[in-house]
Amino acid sequence: MSELITFCGAFAKQPVQYRKAVRVKRMLPGISKVETSLEEVFNKIPITNGMTLSFHHHLRNGDQVVNLVLATAAKLGIRDLNIALSSVFPVHAPLIDHVCNGVVTGLDTNYLSGPVAKAISQGLLPQPIIMRTHGGRARAIECGQLPIDVAFIAAPCADSYGNLNGVMGKNACGSLGYAFPDAEYADYVVAITDCLEEYPLAQISISQTRVDYVVTIDSIGDAKGIVSGTTQVTKDPVGLKIAQMAAQVIQATGLLQDGFSFQTGAGGVSLAVAHYVRKMMQAGNITGSFALGGITGYMVDMLNDGCFQRLLDVQGFDMAAVRSLAANINHREIGADCYANPFNSGCAVNQLDAVILGATEIDTSFNVNVTTGSDGIIMGGSGGHSDAAAGAKVTIIVTNLLRGRLPIIVEKVLTVTTPGESVDVVVTERGIAVNPRRSDLRQRLADAGITVMNIEDLKLMAERIAGKPEQIVLADKVVALVEYRDGTIIDVVKQISSAN
Amino acid sequence: MSELITFCGAFAKQPVQYRKAVRVKRMLPGISKVETSLEEVFNKIPITNGMTLSFHHHLRNGDQVVNLVLATAAKLGIRDLNIALSSVFPVHAPLIDHVCNGVVTGLDTNYLSGPVAKAISQGLLPQPIIMRTHGGRARAIECGQLPIDVAFIAAPCADSYGNLNGVMGKNACGSLGYAFPDAEYADYVVAITDCLEEYPLAQISISQTRVDYVVTIDSIGDAKGIVSGTTQVTKDPVGLKIAQMAAQVIQATGLLQDGFSFQTGAGGVSLAVAHYVRKMMQAGNITGSFALGGITGYMVDMLNDGCFQRLLDVQGFDMAAVRSLAANINHREIGADCYANPFNSGCAVNQLDAVILGATEIDTSFNVNVTTGSDGIIMGGSGGHSDAAAGAKVTIIVTNLLRGRLPIIVEKVLTVTTPGESVDVVVTERGIAVNPRRSDLRQRLADAGITVMNIEDLKLMAERIAGKPEQIVLADKVVALVEYRDGTIIDVVKQISSAN
Repeated sequence: MSELITFCGAFAKQPVQYRKAVRVKRMLPGISKVETSLEEVFNKIPITNGMTLSFHHHLRNGDQVVNLVLATAAKLGIRDLNIALSSVFPVHAPLIDHVCNGVVTGLDTNYLSGPVAKAISQGLLPQPIIMRTHGGRARAIECGQLPIDVAFIAAPCADSYGNLNGVMGKNACGSLGYAFPDAEYADYVVAITDCLEEYPLAQISISQTRVDYVVTIDSIGDAKGIVSGTTQVTKDPVGLKIAQMAAQVIQATGLLQDGFSFQTGAGGVSLAVAHYVRKMMQAGNITGSFALGGITGYMVDMLNDGCFQRLLDVQGFDMAAVRSLAANINHREIGADCYANPFNSGCAVNQLDAVILGATEIDTSFNVNVTTGSDGIIMGGSGGHSDAAAGAKVTIIVTNLLRGRLPIIVEKVLTVTTPGESVDVVVTERGIAVNPRRSDLRQRLADAGITVMNIEDLKLMAERIAGKPEQIVLADKVVALVEYRDGTIIDVVKQISSAN
Repeated sequence: MSELITFCGAFAKQPVQYRKAVRVKRMLPGISKVETSLEEVFNKIPITNGMTLSFHHHLRNGDQVVNLVLATAAKLGIRDLNIALSSVFPVHAPLIDHVCNGVVTGLDTNYLSGPVAKAISQGLLPQPIIMRTHGGRARAIECGQLPIDVAFIAAPCADSYGNLNGVMGKNACGSLGYAFPDAEYADYVVAITDCLEEYPLAQISISQTRVDYVVTIDSIGDAKGIVSGTTQVTKDPVGLKIAQMAAQVIQATGLLQDGFSFQTGAGGVSLAVAHYVRKMMQAGNITGSFALGGITGYMVDMLNDGCFQRLLDVQGFDMAAVRSLAANINHREIGADCYANPFNSGCAVNQLDAVILGATEIDTSFNVNVTTGSDGIIMGGSGGHSDAAAGAKVTIIVTNLLRGRLPIIVEKVLTVTTPGESVDVVVTERGIAVNPRRSDLRQRLADAGITVMNIEDLKLMAERIAGKPEQIVLADKVVALVEYRDGTIIDVVKQISSAN
């Protein structure tokens, strides 16, 4: 690992380096890329001890590719692998056994949930894992700080010469955006598919020029786990109140006019914000520019309604998003680099007007934790959180004031995921706080008749209801380095105490 | 210039190197890329003496961007520039003055016609120019052998954050494929447009992540020179005879079945071959796979007729191609790297069944010259000639036996553009020859009742009509290095004698 540099400001670090220089290959005419045996590909490359294998997470909790590849590695007696998997889901629980057996010794990811996250927090690995942002992972790959020996790309559809897309096949998942940097910069690229089409595909997300092998298997995923069906606007009255307040904040910023651009997540409250924003746009006859990020059917509806002119899609959250990406030219797939890499000639988050984000904790300096839970156990990670917060003109955190009887606003978050300097507004059901750095925004909200509180007062309000939360006792061992999007270390996660 | 290596076989050279490592940049939120002054951009970068500036040629003889940029350089007193322009047209005649004035001292291109070509042949430059293939240029850029300081991209349409396409705007030219490597590997990328749209474009050929500046000007081109109107099947009876024979050869190869893939040029005879192939496909109810390369309206018609499932388009030759690329998902834009770079994980020419190519000379070893004319003056260059010949299963040269009373088949071509080992069949109106390396093909043609002659006999036949051509007298000075697609030097072009 190269020398670690401590975070010192969201835009402090200048890149003084070069993009990764990948070994040049050639492919003679007449050579087939199609293989039916993963073992054969392991032997041909060959995959050896100590390599870094990368994976993308668009198949989410339905992914069967990571487990299949690691089982093959285990069977072949390969050890000491570093796994660069853009997000880890409960389905990836077999990773734990592979760590215990020495097959895997390192993990590099942007988000973890489920058994692997818990095991990491309990000290599973001798070395800390690296947790990045979605844009930061693209940066680390492009800049050579995350060198990938072999990228495995779960491909819902592939042609015989290695062109790939995510919109066809029985396990269509939509955008393959998080795999774009892997395909571009890995030494070897292996596509794994259960839908092999004749050359050439009409829709191509990843090009033949970077794919070395196409391995056909029976099934790359379990469609039920890939997408969550229909993502829904929350019905919870508190969530709806928060969402309505957040929408009013957006309106008060003055950004909600023709050309408005927006990012929000797939959660019920986030979608509720979109719902209220949509009503405002329709009432004001406003045509927005684009919605960005992980895309849901709700955003597709807003595109089709004319609320937005484009969707820029780095990940599909439901089948409506998958179908729209396949059919609508105004629904565009983008890679993780284009989405959020801070070190190129301009990523899409830079063009955002407003973003709605969540928090498991937020502190009085507006630092946000979406990495660890109240028990100190890893339960997420930045994903695109820090990226969108840094890029957007206005970053709004929506959260209940209390969750499970615990105050969300605290003096100091256990883990800093997103630095307070890039967070502008916190909206809770009991009140709204504005970052003191944004006196302009505070004034706009006041002008719109919105009451703005100090974040300290919101914190006290929560503590008066639920008491001051106890400090969690953690062990000394660092289990995760939390890397900011620019590659500096913004925080670390420590092992949970055996008492937990 | 790095050490020159002599050509030693179409597939002899293995790449033992790394892709170019480009300096990493960053673009903070809130920064605009749009500029209205080219001079301003020159000063901001800054562009200095001795740099390499690159350009693409999709605006063909209507291009106004190269001349504008070089006039700006001249005005600012910049000297010693190396110009990497994918093809040079008559419209680029001002280059000659820029060379005379010391603004330009080097040229790197895949094809030259008009005054610049003639001046180069007359010894305009002290150093030889480099002539590459379309795939070879992509390779040279990606591998760092043609390092580009600043890529200028004539963009028929750009959005305010530097996403570009060639299918919108008053000077739409279709595919921007030859500019893809420039955009990816240049240290700076400047888009020049006369059609600025709001962010983000729906159709994007070149991404915001690589474009640093967007310069708006009144007009990037003269539409009349960009496309030749309607490209037409020849009406010349001799040309039609050759084309019909070539189509029969394709049929005899056995490749003309479902999944057939094809490349042909925009010339009248080439289109006539397509015409006869189309009739055969329709008669046999054959659905081809794809047509590749520079695309004409004739190929669009074949796509729309169902003769092919896809068009892979690296350059549009007429407005029908431009309109189709804009509207038809089965008409796909590809970059020069995907088209023909020999050093990646597989380019499109590798998937070709048959290609129809021309020749100004072909010799009894099947070497083809498309670089110099009978007077020894440069009048073209490989473009995609060598690339497609190397990739296709069957490479067919169509040519009149005589042209302007001169035999086309000679003992030794003046300039080797494409090596004989990658040329399979020569079709003239007086007979067909098959490369002795392809006894399999010769047999198939014989089985189909096609008379195959020895190429020596075709040569003698021409000489009996027109006499043996006189040897051209050339000066000693080398004016051009002819680089094969793998980077080795396959031939040189010498200065024409002052006697010429």
